[in-house]
Amino acid sequence: MERDVAAADTREEILRGTYRVLCEHGYANLSMRKIAQECGTSKSLLHYHFDSKDELLLAFLDRFLDRLDEQVTESESADPVERLETFLDRFVPGPDEHARQSFWLALLEMRQQAAHNDAFRERLARNNEAILDALASIITDGIDQGTFHDVDPDRTAELIYSAIEGARTRQATLGHERAPQTVRETIDEQLIDPLVRNGDREPGSR
Amino acid sequence: MERDVAAADTREEILRGTYRVLCEHGYANLSMRKIAQECGTSKSLLHYHFDSKDELLLAFLDRFLDRLDEQVTESESADPVERLETFLDRFVPGPDEHARQSFWLALLEMRQQAAHNDAFRERLARNNEAILDALASIITDGIDQGTFHDVDPDRTAELIYSAIEGARTRQATLGHERAPQTVRETIDEQLIDPLVRNGDREPGSR
Repeated sequence: MERDVAAADTREEILRGTYRVLCEHGYANLSMRKIAQECGTSKSLLHYHFDSKDELLLAFLDRFLDRLDEQVTESESADPVERLETFLDRFVPGPDEHARQSFWLALLEMRQQAAHNDAFRERLARNNEAILDALASIITDGIDQGTFHDVDPDRTAELIYSAIEGARTRQATLGHERAPQTVRETIDEQLIDPLVRNGDREPGSR
Repeated sequence: MERDVAAADTREEILRGTYRVLCEHGYANLSMRKIAQECGTSKSLLHYHFDSKDELLLAFLDRFLDRLDEQVTESESADPVERLETFLDRFVPGPDEHARQSFWLALLEMRQQAAHNDAFRERLARNNEAILDALASIITDGIDQGTFHDVDPDRTAELIYSAIEGARTRQATLGHERAPQTVRETIDEQLIDPLVRNGDREPGSR
């Protein structure tokens, strides 16, 4: 039992180290050696927990999915407008958040792998679905409570999140540091303000 | 003079071959050998026209920019709503346009290179600016003619195009074949319909 806990801790430590190595070196330059170095451990201990780099990365993506689910559950009590803003806060990095920008680049690289790797694609697609579902369920709740106008929640969620993804890619690859924040402001003005019924919310008041 | 024309033709032929190789093999697997093979020519002729693979790719991106400018100029006579729809048609590939999906993947790979390569970034950023400017100028003309409500053209253009880019990336990497078309329909309903003054356009009429 104690050994299981220790093993789970070690795995967790390795997955955290993987995140840091992905941020610093990207996916193409990721190696078991670098992860071991980052965690201050040996390559053989790494291989004891994960047979291969791909297995480690799949575990990393699963962990990432779990955390996403936890975060989504956490915020379920607040009102829909607050929840939308919390969602946007979480997925819109500021111009100085360089680790998150680098991680987005690494995630893009993994998504490119996904075009040719079924296991990767399955995880990354599920990750993407989880985000879209979380956003759509906030919008659905808002409609049910009478806070939002009656729109198609799935399509509205897909439009909002696609715009954030596009802007994050432009930020990470072309150096448009403020792209996600600018797009987020325009989402607020042109998509979320019109969504809210009876002027609870002044247009462009943030 | 004739030799210049022939040389220009050859360069053009090589750049077209580069497009096809990018679509089929992606950026990571692009090689001078593959391009020569695709064009039915020799590697040495390729090197006569382009010193290196990077120089060829920069020329390719410049050509790409020139074509973009031509296309933008072509459509300048039509009315703003038509021009917006033409713009969206051009940048939203259908589920069966596999070559365009593959090319988007290759462009994404080049954009990742851009994070570490100034010459690439400069070209790709200019390409991106050209697209955003074209879209913003359609919106500006629409406002000036009284067809559109008074919005910020640059921000509206950035929101629309970011959503298209995000959806294209999801299509190319996660196999969401219809993502760009679905997002385009939602752009029509939630961004473009509300932009048009005095009900010239039925909401969701397309």
